[in-house]
Amino acid sequence: MVDPKNDDDGEQLSKAGHSRRDAIKLGGVAALAAVVGGGALLSHATPAFAQTSSKVGSLDQNDPLNILIVNYDGGTLLDFAGPSEIFHRLPNTNIRYASLNGGNVTLEFGVVYGNTERLADIEKTDLILVPGGSDLTAPMGPAYQAQIRRLAENAKYVTSVCNGSLVLAATGVLKGKRSGCHWAFLNELPKYGAIPVAERFVEDDNGRFMSGGGVTAGIDFALRVAEKLRGRKAAEFTQLLIAYDPAPPFHCGDPSDAPPEIIAMVDKRLPGASKGLALIPGLH
Amino acid sequence: MVDPKNDDDGEQLSKAGHSRRDAIKLGGVAALAAVVGGGALLSHATPAFAQTSSKVGSLDQNDPLNILIVNYDGGTLLDFAGPSEIFHRLPNTNIRYASLNGGNVTLEFGVVYGNTERLADIEKTDLILVPGGSDLTAPMGPAYQAQIRRLAENAKYVTSVCNGSLVLAATGVLKGKRSGCHWAFLNELPKYGAIPVAERFVEDDNGRFMSGGGVTAGIDFALRVAEKLRGRKAAEFTQLLIAYDPAPPFHCGDPSDAPPEIIAMVDKRLPGASKGLALIPGLH
Repeated sequence: MVDPKNDDDGEQLSKAGHSRRDAIKLGGVAALAAVVGGGALLSHATPAFAQTSSKVGSLDQNDPLNILIVNYDGGTLLDFAGPSEIFHRLPNTNIRYASLNGGNVTLEFGVVYGNTERLADIEKTDLILVPGGSDLTAPMGPAYQAQIRRLAENAKYVTSVCNGSLVLAATGVLKGKRSGCHWAFLNELPKYGAIPVAERFVEDDNGRFMSGGGVTAGIDFALRVAEKLRGRKAAEFTQLLIAYDPAPPFHCGDPSDAPPEIIAMVDKRLPGASKGLALIPGLH
Repeated sequence: MVDPKNDDDGEQLSKAGHSRRDAIKLGGVAALAAVVGGGALLSHATPAFAQTSSKVGSLDQNDPLNILIVNYDGGTLLDFAGPSEIFHRLPNTNIRYASLNGGNVTLEFGVVYGNTERLADIEKTDLILVPGGSDLTAPMGPAYQAQIRRLAENAKYVTSVCNGSLVLAATGVLKGKRSGCHWAFLNELPKYGAIPVAERFVEDDNGRFMSGGGVTAGIDFALRVAEKLRGRKAAEFTQLLIAYDPAPPFHCGDPSDAPPEIIAMVDKRLPGASKGLALIPGLH
């Protein structure tokens, strides 16, 4: 039943499969458009960043790649679980997890993610990933912000998923940069000088800055990062291993496609969400 | 930019978006077909199961729903991170995590998932979810199997994601039942008396048994479980919150859609994968 030559799931299932594939194909075109449209000017960079921007693209796809995932109390598991699962399957790639104090962190809903290193113990990383959360109080604090700024300023690639972009932006490193964010928080980005882009994958400065949209967009984000940094075959290999052939049950993954009644439910839970201006602890 | 009425991403991006939506619509039809085709005969049930099958569908969508996610060393984070993220957002739903000895478990790639309860301390659960892994030695052991069998026999809903279905099947509870599995392991199911189905969401016995395909299929699986047990609006609300409007970058999420060269790469890593007969520690 997994014979790649044999696609006999029945008429309606096949139709769904083929339509999904067409969507994938067009998704590729969309991605290309995003790449073409995403080249930002280095003149937007802050002085500190202009100095390190010369590193952009300097990592060859055969060089070792060190990735740091930043964890904090109140973070959202799925924001980094998708990227984690993808990055761990790439060749010559090492992933570390760190939080301000190290050890266990208590994520959203009380989920415990364990055994993180201390951020201060990470000298540097090639790629820093800041995932989002439902409570950004911890990573918006001064000590956390200082660590993230230090590591981001010295990283070749500065990345985020979901409203992790707000944490990055608050450090100042996204000034004038295009960035993605969860749709409910997207329009908070300009408060920190970043340019909001309502896409699942966004890049700027030729890929020095890469970001994903909300929660599950981390999977699309990470596969694109994988392609850019480890090559297309490695990314495809990973997509096949994680069986990423999605079949969402409803028209409800984005406000542009969701029934007004459901958007209203989210607005009730997160006031301001439909304006991209939801407020959660840690945002002002 | 998140105005639900305003979809102005540009020509190519809009095309991709609309095609994705068409795919979603057809995915819905496919799901319906799966439901219609999925009613299995209770006569397939083992005697122990025939006794408990009377509970099928007895949970009203307003009743409290208790979910247990089984964790073990060697498990795959993303297999349960998607369902976890979805289930935590459902009304009147409580999620617990347990492993044989409790405490931290060390997942695939050394990822540490913390603070699990002891399986023996869980008296019963409405829904048991067994995620998959890259090393099934732990959950295939007799003490683990006994706990999973005990909890599954007394659960209203018996579920799995990825090759977690092999762990469930090895306890005997899936005899004669249709089940999903990661494509690389799907044809191991008959060794344990279960019926392999190459879909992202599979059900049997009117939903008493529900299972997902490989890794990321856990997201599609959990949204369908959410719809069945908490109602469509709660499921849609969750899909919107986790921004599940996927845009896979490649034609590579399933062997039926992947380049032969990439399938060969997986076969090299996991011999037997393209036959659905990959072997990993814990399988014989």
